[in-house]
Amino acid sequence: MTYLQDISACLGSGALALDERLFAELLDETKGALDTLRLARADGSLPLLALPARRDDLEALEPLAARLRGTCDDVVILGTGGSSLGGQAIHAFAPPGAVPRLHFLDNIDPERFEAVIDSLDLERTGVLAISKSGGTAETLTQLLALLARLDAGGNAKDRPKDRLGERVVAVTQPGDSPLRRLALRYGLTVLDHDPEIGGRFAALSLVGLLPAMIAGLDAGAVRAGAAAVLDPALGGDDPSLVPPAIGAALSVGLARQRGLRQSVLLAYSDTLEPFARWYRQLWAESLGKQGHGTTPIPAVGAVDQHSQLQLWLDGPADKLFTVIMADRKGAGARIAPELAEDLLAEDGPLGWLGGRTMGDLMEAEQRATAETLAAAGRPVRVLGLKSVDLRALGALMMHYMLETVIAAHLLGVDPFDQPAVEEGKVLARRYLLEMPRA
Amino acid sequence: MTYLQDISACLGSGALALDERLFAELLDETKGALDTLRLARADGSLPLLALPARRDDLEALEPLAARLRGTCDDVVILGTGGSSLGGQAIHAFAPPGAVPRLHFLDNIDPERFEAVIDSLDLERTGVLAISKSGGTAETLTQLLALLARLDAGGNAKDRPKDRLGERVVAVTQPGDSPLRRLALRYGLTVLDHDPEIGGRFAALSLVGLLPAMIAGLDAGAVRAGAAAVLDPALGGDDPSLVPPAIGAALSVGLARQRGLRQSVLLAYSDTLEPFARWYRQLWAESLGKQGHGTTPIPAVGAVDQHSQLQLWLDGPADKLFTVIMADRKGAGARIAPELAEDLLAEDGPLGWLGGRTMGDLMEAEQRATAETLAAAGRPVRVLGLKSVDLRALGALMMHYMLETVIAAHLLGVDPFDQPAVEEGKVLARRYLLEMPRA
Repeated sequence: MTYLQDISACLGSGALALDERLFAELLDETKGALDTLRLARADGSLPLLALPARRDDLEALEPLAARLRGTCDDVVILGTGGSSLGGQAIHAFAPPGAVPRLHFLDNIDPERFEAVIDSLDLERTGVLAISKSGGTAETLTQLLALLARLDAGGNAKDRPKDRLGERVVAVTQPGDSPLRRLALRYGLTVLDHDPEIGGRFAALSLVGLLPAMIAGLDAGAVRAGAAAVLDPALGGDDPSLVPPAIGAALSVGLARQRGLRQSVLLAYSDTLEPFARWYRQLWAESLGKQGHGTTPIPAVGAVDQHSQLQLWLDGPADKLFTVIMADRKGAGARIAPELAEDLLAEDGPLGWLGGRTMGDLMEAEQRATAETLAAAGRPVRVLGLKSVDLRALGALMMHYMLETVIAAHLLGVDPFDQPAVEEGKVLARRYLLEMPRA
Repeated sequence: MTYLQDISACLGSGALALDERLFAELLDETKGALDTLRLARADGSLPLLALPARRDDLEALEPLAARLRGTCDDVVILGTGGSSLGGQAIHAFAPPGAVPRLHFLDNIDPERFEAVIDSLDLERTGVLAISKSGGTAETLTQLLALLARLDAGGNAKDRPKDRLGERVVAVTQPGDSPLRRLALRYGLTVLDHDPEIGGRFAALSLVGLLPAMIAGLDAGAVRAGAAAVLDPALGGDDPSLVPPAIGAALSVGLARQRGLRQSVLLAYSDTLEPFARWYRQLWAESLGKQGHGTTPIPAVGAVDQHSQLQLWLDGPADKLFTVIMADRKGAGARIAPELAEDLLAEDGPLGWLGGRTMGDLMEAEQRATAETLAAAGRPVRVLGLKSVDLRALGALMMHYMLETVIAAHLLGVDPFDQPAVEEGKVLARRYLLEMPRA
């Protein structure tokens, strides 16, 4: 097992505990979702579920990844939301200072965008522009701004078609779209985004894994971790053995019975910080419909003990907590008492720290925080990892994708659409048209 | 005026609108808080309020900042919560690639900590260790781990006392503490943290401004922006002319009357992302007491349109939104239609984008998002900045510190303590003591 889930601090007799009968009922209801998922895997209608076992597509991508890895000092990843957050979550595992440096530009802030681009040697910079629809306004604007710079030396039509294509790649679904037309015009490399995998469910596809491969990370390990969750989840008939089903029933039950509308994901790991933001989109956009959904709140331990914990413990009791922790005992250098005998000796003011490691402190704090929250009557579940690595990340991603789809089933909403954001897009376009030209 | 506040989309007749009478009552109640603040400024009991007008302390710090700026390629800032977030928020204004590079290490994740340290040339690395109490477990652990490396060449006692002090600085309040003893032992430079300014209110002190000065940023501009908010706020008698008082009355009123327990701060700026996280600590830790407080949710536009907006528009109606925006029209390079005539010509599929700039798109999107939220009946206030610069940041910081203190007055809680987190600290210490030694 890649991780262990413990929800015992969410049940029982506390004022915010989930009623065991409601929990059992909801868990029983998850059978329908698990059946649907099994069917979708069997008939191929949810290709996301086929990814964990696949390696052929990664092998096909490796030459491109190797070329960018070998020829670029920097690689810019254009795209926003689901086109960026999965890649960011995986790339967090690259060591600091590794080359090529990856820059996930997911915004249209002109100051930051131009400052980053100005800091790069564009002749040794690769570009990955990701938009499933091929029509995302932000991504197209970014790519056009970049193409104007890359193509500054001449008109693209007069230059060898494959010149930019060696290091500028577009990822988009098949069919005509502005992004595909741009790619054709400039001779860019085009890779297909699976039209049946929505952006926020695309981290295990090339959307999340090609950036990882360019950074030299083991994409197969992410898939293996996902498989280790998916296969047993869809293998049996008993949802009480399926962690994502348990999680979905817990979350939906606590929202329904206790009115808990906030879901804190507290990861004791710097490396998992972007993962927590990936989860935020997945959960918010998939379930926030028709008045349903809970607010996902990404947090990092121990940092947020010094920022949010006071509110969590003594503010309104309206949150479910998931604490992700790994065994950290002994990690990092040992703090030798000789560094400051008067403080670190056994009877000194820092005697509890002498001879310990930074990992020991992390270990003590993650455990203390989870127990303090539970002691304050807050529902806490713990996801315990063996270690924080790419395999664990893949497992967490698959866990949360399944949990989200199952929770959507319990709430009666479609996890794969995001209808409410369309209106704003239309309005923004209108404002742009109406804006007086400079 | 450095910014304009518009709360019209929070009042009126909407289902979530704040009743005008309650709003007027609460606004009247803020007079007590404003009186207290005026008094505290006059008698010096809240030294935070004296900072905006001061420059003498910054001038005294400049030689140290200049030395680190001139001799270090990297500067590591140790400290967590209020010892780090203000500095991060200000340092976000440094251009990418600027030297010295600042690394805010606010966690005790051994993997990340060691990876970052390993990537540095320690002979050309400065260190700033910040802990108000001088006893923060995380900061002491980080500093001890670093001292072990810096001191690897020999025993500190046998080396000239001023050697490390040239580039290792401790910031802590006066009086005996483990951090001060460590600093004495290793001959570090020690600067006083004002004992009367709590960490999360310390961004305008050396805690937030020394890192900025080391990065070559204009600390005076931050203070000037703060003064531009503070002086008029405490200058008159009419709270309806004081934006932070209006904001506090609005927020407390919507929580009380409409049960809105979440407060989204959506900044349309990459540069303000760390500021939004600074706000999260300030608001959560100051107000999250005795069942009071609302959950601050930091967000960045346009990015979170592709992550959280669906939930905000169509999920539970339980949030107050503050959208921070600046005039972006014309910012960034113009997207020349010649880049792709078939797409960008006036009648092409991207005709709305041709001839525009990235800033134009940001401008259209921030306006569209605020209006779409309001049209969906969500209470929205807008903070409109002239531009996103250090002066505006200082203004926003002072606005929110005042708003927080005033909101605490309305809720009847002490904004300056954080009693609930103590229990977890004690527990963590106990677990560390009980842990079997490796």
